[in-house]
Amino acid sequence: MEPGKRLSAAVAGASGYAGGEVLRVLLNHPHVEIGALTGASNAGTRLGQLQPHLLPLADRVLQPTTTEVLAGHDVVFLALPHGASAAVAAELGEDVLVVDLGADHRLADAAAWERFYGSAHAGTWPYGLPELPLAGGGRQRAHLAGTRRIAVPGCYPTSVSLALAPGLTAGLLAPDDVVVVAASGTSGAGKALKPHLLGSEVMGSMSPYGVGGGHRHTPEIEQNLGLAAGAPVTVSFTPTLAPMSRGILATCTARLADGASAAQVRAAWEDAYADEPFVHLLPEGQWPSTAQVSGGNACALQLAVDEHAGRVLVVSAIDNLVKGTAGGAVQSVNIALGLPEDAGLAAVGVAP
Amino acid sequence: MEPGKRLSAAVAGASGYAGGEVLRVLLNHPHVEIGALTGASNAGTRLGQLQPHLLPLADRVLQPTTTEVLAGHDVVFLALPHGASAAVAAELGEDVLVVDLGADHRLADAAAWERFYGSAHAGTWPYGLPELPLAGGGRQRAHLAGTRRIAVPGCYPTSVSLALAPGLTAGLLAPDDVVVVAASGTSGAGKALKPHLLGSEVMGSMSPYGVGGGHRHTPEIEQNLGLAAGAPVTVSFTPTLAPMSRGILATCTARLADGASAAQVRAAWEDAYADEPFVHLLPEGQWPSTAQVSGGNACALQLAVDEHAGRVLVVSAIDNLVKGTAGGAVQSVNIALGLPEDAGLAAVGVAP
Amino acid sequence: MEPGKRLSAAVAGASGYAGGEVLRVLLNHPHVEIGALTGASNAGTRLGQLQPHLLPLADRVLQPTTTEVLAGHDVVFLALPHGASAAVAAELGEDVLVVDLGADHRLADAAAWERFYGSAHAGTWPYGLPELPLAGGGRQRAHLAGTRRIAVPGCYPTSVSLALAPGLTAGLLAPDDVVVVAASGTSGAGKALKPHLLGSEVMGSMSPYGVGGGHRHTPEIEQNLGLAAGAPVTVSFTPTLAPMSRGILATCTARLADGASAAQVRAAWEDAYADEPFVHLLPEGQWPSTAQVSGGNACALQLAVDEHAGRVLVVSAIDNLVKGTAGGAVQSVNIALGLPEDAGLAAVGVAP
Amino acid sequence: MEPGKRLSAAVAGASGYAGGEVLRVLLNHPHVEIGALTGASNAGTRLGQLQPHLLPLADRVLQPTTTEVLAGHDVVFLALPHGASAAVAAELGEDVLVVDLGADHRLADAAAWERFYGSAHAGTWPYGLPELPLAGGGRQRAHLAGTRRIAVPGCYPTSVSLALAPGLTAGLLAPDDVVVVAASGTSGAGKALKPHLLGSEVMGSMSPYGVGGGHRHTPEIEQNLGLAAGAPVTVSFTPTLAPMSRGILATCTARLADGASAAQVRAAWEDAYADEPFVHLLPEGQWPSTAQVSGGNACALQLAVDEHAGRVLVVSAIDNLVKGTAGGAVQSVNIALGLPEDAGLAAVGVAP
Repeated sequence: MEPGKRLSAAVAGASGYAGGEVLRVLLNHPHVEIGALTGASNAGTRLGQLQPHLLPLADRVLQPTTTEVLAGHDVVFLALPHGASAAVAAELGEDVLVVDLGADHRLADAAAWERFYGSAHAGTWPYGLPELPLAGGGRQRAHLAGTRRIAVPGCYPTSVSLALAPGLTAGLLAPDDVVVVAASGTSGAGKALKPHLLGSEVMGSMSPYGVGGGHRHTPEIEQNLGLAAGAPVTVSFTPTLAPMSRGILATCTARLADGASAAQVRAAWEDAYADEPFVHLLPEGQWPSTAQVSGGNACALQLAVDEHAGRVLVVSAIDNLVKGTAGGAVQSVNIALGLPEDAGLAAVGVAP
Repeated sequence: MEPGKRLSAAVAGASGYAGGEVLRVLLNHPHVEIGALTGASNAGTRLGQLQPHLLPLADRVLQPTTTEVLAGHDVVFLALPHGASAAVAAELGEDVLVVDLGADHRLADAAAWERFYGSAHAGTWPYGLPELPLAGGGRQRAHLAGTRRIAVPGCYPTSVSLALAPGLTAGLLAPDDVVVVAASGTSGAGKALKPHLLGSEVMGSMSPYGVGGGHRHTPEIEQNLGLAAGAPVTVSFTPTLAPMSRGILATCTARLADGASAAQVRAAWEDAYADEPFVHLLPEGQWPSTAQVSGGNACALQLAVDEHAGRVLVVSAIDNLVKGTAGGAVQSVNIALGLPEDAGLAAVGVAP
Repeated sequence: MEPGKRLSAAVAGASGYAGGEVLRVLLNHPHVEIGALTGASNAGTRLGQLQPHLLPLADRVLQPTTTEVLAGHDVVFLALPHGASAAVAAELGEDVLVVDLGADHRLADAAAWERFYGSAHAGTWPYGLPELPLAGGGRQRAHLAGTRRIAVPGCYPTSVSLALAPGLTAGLLAPDDVVVVAASGTSGAGKALKPHLLGSEVMGSMSPYGVGGGHRHTPEIEQNLGLAAGAPVTVSFTPTLAPMSRGILATCTARLADGASAAQVRAAWEDAYADEPFVHLLPEGQWPSTAQVSGGNACALQLAVDEHAGRVLVVSAIDNLVKGTAGGAVQSVNIALGLPEDAGLAAVGVAP
Repeated sequence: MEPGKRLSAAVAGASGYAGGEVLRVLLNHPHVEIGALTGASNAGTRLGQLQPHLLPLADRVLQPTTTEVLAGHDVVFLALPHGASAAVAAELGEDVLVVDLGADHRLADAAAWERFYGSAHAGTWPYGLPELPLAGGGRQRAHLAGTRRIAVPGCYPTSVSLALAPGLTAGLLAPDDVVVVAASGTSGAGKALKPHLLGSEVMGSMSPYGVGGGHRHTPEIEQNLGLAAGAPVTVSFTPTLAPMSRGILATCTARLADGASAAQVRAAWEDAYADEPFVHLLPEGQWPSTAQVSGGNACALQLAVDEHAGRVLVVSAIDNLVKGTAGGAVQSVNIALGLPEDAGLAAVGVAP
């Protein structure tokens, strides 16, 4: 990129939580300027009505989500309903960096996609989780350099994959008995008007959701953990809704592999993340909280070996909208475009 | 009990959350009148200063926690620090019903007690979880009739034991691979002034707590599940703190026993709780929330068989201060004294 | 009423927050049995789906809101949209006690109704705020004995009227400079699916609502305060939405009348509520909180004279769904039917 | 300042909420590097234990708060208990920019200080509210250029002063009848371990605090409004505690001056803030929320004339820790040092 040149970015679906958070992150990005903003039913509305916290963009008006509006930008972020992104990307051309914040292009297994989403598989794009350690050595980061298509991971898969991958790559965890229970803030369920998402229902309440027939994020989690392990991984995954707007706390356990020691376990995670600016293994004894990463692009981790139960416990905390969505997306964009990976991003959270 | 006679109840430790909730429940109890209220550092203080919601008792003044003050009541509830209840009970005599809301008398295994609490074991009292199915048939309820000593279960063990026991009694769950992640409201951590319990820290945040060396509630959970299974049960248990004042949501999974079917699983829980007024297996597909049991003595349950992971998922919701503490205590008192088991108690929650 | 006889009560609009709370209160009422439950779009649905906390009524199915369904009950509670209650009441006949939880019959001033609601005035029913002191002496209670029509007050008017009326009746407050700012939990805004009521929007946020052109509750507040003062009262009223499910905290100030003393002020409120079981003037220096009245039928009050500003400050706390809606309704029903005024009701709150 | 040179900043009292937020803001500041961090009882502790969200500073260890430690920095932020800052500042010398986040140097009226704080007045420093319009024309900003001492305003006075000052300067509001009710998040009450600040007590609850004898912030509010009006202003001020970690919503009303029109009112605020980057008068009909300014340095405003009550209603929202404390402090520092006023600061909030 030429010195001083700023890249233009468009955001399709700017009225939702994912689109709004992309804009919040981009407002801090030194190399990006914000171009077209689009919506579906909200086209024609001031952004100030829809995203009142984005005060510097309050007077922007949403345009319809068409190829004409989105064309001519260097980067296009798509925060669209399932099934819509492939067609838009095809029309934008191969030299535009298209970033799909939805689920359409995450899974390599078309059958798994169709089973969980009930529609045709749109294809598979490079998966935007740079820190993911891979079984044969290396990181997922290598697959993102220079790409013009990025599939942004789901928020749950981000938190769970970062939590467990190092132990699987190192062969310290049995791959067939992984149990994860994750609590998410309500923004993870989106801005759709559903009765169970009303404030009156949510405050003071915890409940599971999307369980029973297997959660849509399970195949994505298993895909990532399988890449880390180099072998299939089976996960029991239960998401719950917590009375907070943001954050995921993923409590992950897996059976300790035969012969593995607690020292090996700690070393594996330390090694995996020693040089990662956004993944923080906390000092022993300090456990993560979602508050500590709220508004920031960090993933905070802690682990312990439970000798009694023969399991390793790993807890990770992320902000579902930042590291789990918009921050992770911008991080991958930075890699794709050869910018500093942390441009516009910070690990620091907003607390209390 | 003679018609019209009201039993007198004293509450030691009336300034804390457990003691306050016992009083709230007793204010609705048709057969009990509230006698002496005691405190330690709060002796001499109006209850209205300490428990402003207990408006009908606002002018009561706390007395010191002495045998003289507590003597002469039919029932004495002890909400005291660890290690204090045995001595008080010994002095009150064997004909007084003494109800220990603390942990001192819950465990049968003295060694486990000493490992987790670091002090001498005080002994074992009949355990106040009436609905617990036992391996040889029957319920824990039978051990409570006529007793003059009751060990009130911990709130986590109540939620987890009711969730999993039916499957263990029926032999449908493998006892060696139980994983539980439970979220609790902050009142479960008590009224002690600790930085991480400040509202500014708690709101908007989820975090694990008391993990790493094994949680104190693990042996109690394993004891209960062992009684249900008729064999030792090993549990990986992780508690988390949720941004709400009340409630526990326990997400419990166990490996499905070889040859067990989903139909058998559902039938086992239906049979176990069909006649229990306070344990509600919800209609298939409806999952529990802590809001739905807030303020009430109910435990709401739902389960599913995850064929993919080979595990059974059971989620239970209780109010930690009611079914998990004061309501469960009064339920056991009713049994001990031959009163209707639901006297003063209701399953209905306060929502939204 | 014959000994042992239970009155039957129907609830129209049982799927909303007001209707649900009426049911929760009635489940504790010793003299009422719950009859027909009706809904509009929810007719045919199990109550357990709509109000999962009402576990004892979970299997009840909503019927359509028709006169046939509602007929034959002793009491009919109407939690219906504006404009619907008058026609239903007319068909039920004059011997049925009809309780309108909506706004239709609260205002005596038809013009004020039409200005704020934009539709024809339905008429005026006896106003269900028993404790309201009236200018000429006496209480509103006297107008409720034996009535077969009750207009349940709005939740804001309940909290503000109880806060300020004693000082107006006693001539200690200037009637032309009353300023009220009240914070309400989100249940006060109902169960309608509106974006600003989503949990993600509400948690962590305070905002005003329904302001600018004057709030619909202003004329009702002024009507009540006018009855207390015996002269017109003008109020500046601003409601705000707080991140909690329940509760109203009304911060009310009025200019101290010339010559009035702080001692007279305190005495006026003490005298007004000394014998009222549900209105609690707290000891000096203790200020009310919504938590202390949550789930209970109490109104907690405190006041202070601000000599510097020349104003009296009165703060009241109620549960908007109990004293502000369903509890207040049942209290008035008890009076109308000659039952003990507190039957089924308690002042005690659910806290923490 | 030389190009590329970074100023060094020390923070005394880095373990509290104000000190932590200064650090969070400074981490984004392009011209400042963070130097010594000090604490009292927390000296010797890793910052990661005390402020776990400040991940980039986690390994910093707090030093004792001594002149030796604080000396040698360009800027020293003091987040100290009342009464401590004057002595520290005296020892640091006159060329160091000392920023007092506490109340010691805010009031010009020594008698008012002593009445509310009960100790000797430490003196008066230039007051750090740049946007405040002054009666004779001009802004408070002019008093900050080049200063080496800054008294950071209280959070409540910031929100109320920005809300009302334009109308007083323009003579559109009567100065003798101002009524303010403000709701604050719990971080405004600090990190002290007090029972009423526990999460269990705070969540789901609203309550007034610090009322009855006049709140400590009243004289500061009146001082600011007096500077805007050019005449004494009397305020009835009631703060309340809301169940959220951050944010102030100030609901302010004042009697409309005789002859003033609604158009004049709107124009006065529009004119006052048209060129202010951090004060946003929202489009008519859109009311502020604390969520929209959370984590950002903005003040969002809306107003309406209530013809019925003869009052002007102005509602302002700020983040008490940013615009109300650390962001406002850095904004004033930028002015004092000749940096761009918005260096390190953004108006954008973190929502949802």
